[in-house]
Amino acid sequence: MTKLKVELLLTGNELMSGDVIDSNSAVIAQQLKTLGLEISRRVTVKDDTDLLSQEIISQSQRADILIINGGLGPTVDDMTAQALADAAQLPLAIHQQALSQLTAWCEKRSYVLNQANKKQAVLPQGCDIITNDSGSACGFHLRLNGCAIYTTPGVPSEMVTMIQQEIVPAIERDFKINSTTDVSRFQVFGIGESTIQQLVSEHLSDWPAEIELGFRASMPLIEMKLTTDTEQGHGIKALWQNKLEQLLGGHVIGQGKTSLAQALVEALQQQHKSVAFAESCTGGLMSSLLTQVSGCSEVFEAGFVTYSNAIKAKIISVSEHTLTQFGAVSSEVVLEMAQGALKQSGSDYVVAVSGIAGPGGGSIDKPVGTVWLAWGEQGNIQTIGLAVPLPRIKFQQYVAAVGLDLIRRHIIGITTPAYYIEQRALTNSAT
Amino acid sequence: MTKLKVELLLTGNELMSGDVIDSNSAVIAQQLKTLGLEISRRVTVKDDTDLLSQEIISQSQRADILIINGGLGPTVDDMTAQALADAAQLPLAIHQQALSQLTAWCEKRSYVLNQANKKQAVLPQGCDIITNDSGSACGFHLRLNGCAIYTTPGVPSEMVTMIQQEIVPAIERDFKINSTTDVSRFQVFGIGESTIQQLVSEHLSDWPAEIELGFRASMPLIEMKLTTDTEQGHGIKALWQNKLEQLLGGHVIGQGKTSLAQALVEALQQQHKSVAFAESCTGGLMSSLLTQVSGCSEVFEAGFVTYSNAIKAKIISVSEHTLTQFGAVSSEVVLEMAQGALKQSGSDYVVAVSGIAGPGGGSIDKPVGTVWLAWGEQGNIQTIGLAVPLPRIKFQQYVAAVGLDLIRRHIIGITTPAYYIEQRALTNSAT
Repeated sequence: MTKLKVELLLTGNELMSGDVIDSNSAVIAQQLKTLGLEISRRVTVKDDTDLLSQEIISQSQRADILIINGGLGPTVDDMTAQALADAAQLPLAIHQQALSQLTAWCEKRSYVLNQANKKQAVLPQGCDIITNDSGSACGFHLRLNGCAIYTTPGVPSEMVTMIQQEIVPAIERDFKINSTTDVSRFQVFGIGESTIQQLVSEHLSDWPAEIELGFRASMPLIEMKLTTDTEQGHGIKALWQNKLEQLLGGHVIGQGKTSLAQALVEALQQQHKSVAFAESCTGGLMSSLLTQVSGCSEVFEAGFVTYSNAIKAKIISVSEHTLTQFGAVSSEVVLEMAQGALKQSGSDYVVAVSGIAGPGGGSIDKPVGTVWLAWGEQGNIQTIGLAVPLPRIKFQQYVAAVGLDLIRRHIIGITTPAYYIEQRALTNSAT
Repeated sequence: MTKLKVELLLTGNELMSGDVIDSNSAVIAQQLKTLGLEISRRVTVKDDTDLLSQEIISQSQRADILIINGGLGPTVDDMTAQALADAAQLPLAIHQQALSQLTAWCEKRSYVLNQANKKQAVLPQGCDIITNDSGSACGFHLRLNGCAIYTTPGVPSEMVTMIQQEIVPAIERDFKINSTTDVSRFQVFGIGESTIQQLVSEHLSDWPAEIELGFRASMPLIEMKLTTDTEQGHGIKALWQNKLEQLLGGHVIGQGKTSLAQALVEALQQQHKSVAFAESCTGGLMSSLLTQVSGCSEVFEAGFVTYSNAIKAKIISVSEHTLTQFGAVSSEVVLEMAQGALKQSGSDYVVAVSGIAGPGGGSIDKPVGTVWLAWGEQGNIQTIGLAVPLPRIKFQQYVAAVGLDLIRRHIIGITTPAYYIEQRALTNSAT
């Protein structure tokens, strides 16, 4: 990593009041990472010219690069240009190039250029403008106390385009950065973070220092991230990623930012097979997650949300005797749900789930968080009971993930036991 | 608003790298708002004792109250205690009260108290501890340069409990704040922000300055927020909120942080009626949203995710003739889906939806984003076609919201036309 000092300054009352959560900082950090740059410090202030101007002076004295986000719009709240002019002791003036871009932007949309808009072309004298392809607010660039300052709009979509297309290339050019940072990610499910840590320590204790290995829980998945920025790292990264994936085996869902549903759709597509769902406590969430994946119509035809006992009996033929004898949350009932859904849908594979999401509905035998799942295909359906003591919505999300993962493993033929079975399986059947 | 100066200091490499988005700041801001306090400035730094300690000194010189978030855990990355001791030039020492709390916490969970955990009881000498009911890391409090400093854990659930139960009451007591800020919110759907603005300007032009009115899009809802902190404002707030709700009429979903699904469940509960869903393009999302609401089993029994034509025919009796003649995305098909779902489920009300979520599957007659909905009850089912040109997942979220809102309005008997019908209805039927 290069040793340039980078700071960030964000402005906006909505960021201070808690009405808006700042996601821009994360995007800017990720973009700068492609240049091997890290942000060491970030300051967020409300919309106040004096406060902003003081921060700009102080940050420009500490940092090599300062990125300012927000305050470029047409309203009186937008005071970045004024604050930067004050900090740099420069007059504000109409910037001709900014004005022509603004005029062109308005004409293209048949907007009338009003006085408020024109304010967006009033900038500290002598600054360079930064083109905004997706909005009316130009960014601008100047140097103060040896620090390169870049301003960006607060609207996320405009900010992203400007950072990617204009500012990252400008920094790369101005600071002669020859970036070699290479990041790759893959997703895992069904194994705990501490187990991953232990496996890596035991089996990959010679992990090379050139490759930074990080992992991060991103409910319900864990994301593994390999970063390198040395020539030697580049040469060996694929090899070590491969070793790591081998070690994690069937827990690896897929490359990049994939999801369990995406992985399941791909597994089904490869076999030209289809899946159906019978859902009680997850209420349609497994179906909904699968249909977020475009192209899922090749592999998915039917989902049954059978929330009541009567509907379980009527729509997917669970016998009333089984419901009465074992209760809706039981191995026997999810088995019949799975069989009924297979028959009604004509699908190749099935997942069925019934559980107690809470907060009400629990008992001593079957406390809130008890859930039974069935999965498989005609003539080969397995069931398992798990204890998932999470709040209602998290319970639903976790159980839906487990359902998708159980059938994914079954289809691909993975026999490695998953964490949720090892750790959460009910020791004695609730039946 | 009281004039106390409040600043925030956050620490964590994951906050700087862009791997984690900071949502703690928003929660802290909202909690302090209940005391009428605003955060004027917030600084975020990576895990570095020197950097942290410098910031603490500088912030303690500017602010009356400084809240530090993060860096209280057991690992070497957690350096808030060290940084604060350095800043205040105090030695670190085992804090007996912190140690007993930590020991009790471990015993309760049958954990062994190891050396790493014990580090959490090593605090700047003379500080007061702040109880953590939901985790092992105590917070602590001391004064430096006249500034009251409170430290909090980075884990959101632990932070929230500590802020609510310990720190807000402590600030209220120590600074003798007699809070008079009163905030209320309600949610609306089916009306645009600019229309709200226009209605308020036209009909409530005498809106009192004592009540701050804000609104904010929070997909798919718009949240209306009324804030007052004067005695006069308190006296008239309920009256003006009532005027505003009257003006917005049937677009008002409910009070506080409610959802469309919650509002629908409540409407159904009042009438002791039930609803069923037949979903194609939304893939189970309406059912899933409804079952997020605890207590929904009183009003919901069945959802049919009929993604293919064959399943629409087999499970909810859509005629093959209708499917062939009009296509799956048509008024005729959603009408038959609704009728079939009513019959199969025995529910009182129904919503059916079929559309083209994209990115593929569109045609000139029925482009991506075309969707038909049917809603109502036996003998009284309406249909409408809408154009919703959004990316796949946003399309699904928006259409599911519209489906829940259509039946909500029908059940309550609201006749005001919704924005999505006025603006998005297909001018000529796609059939």
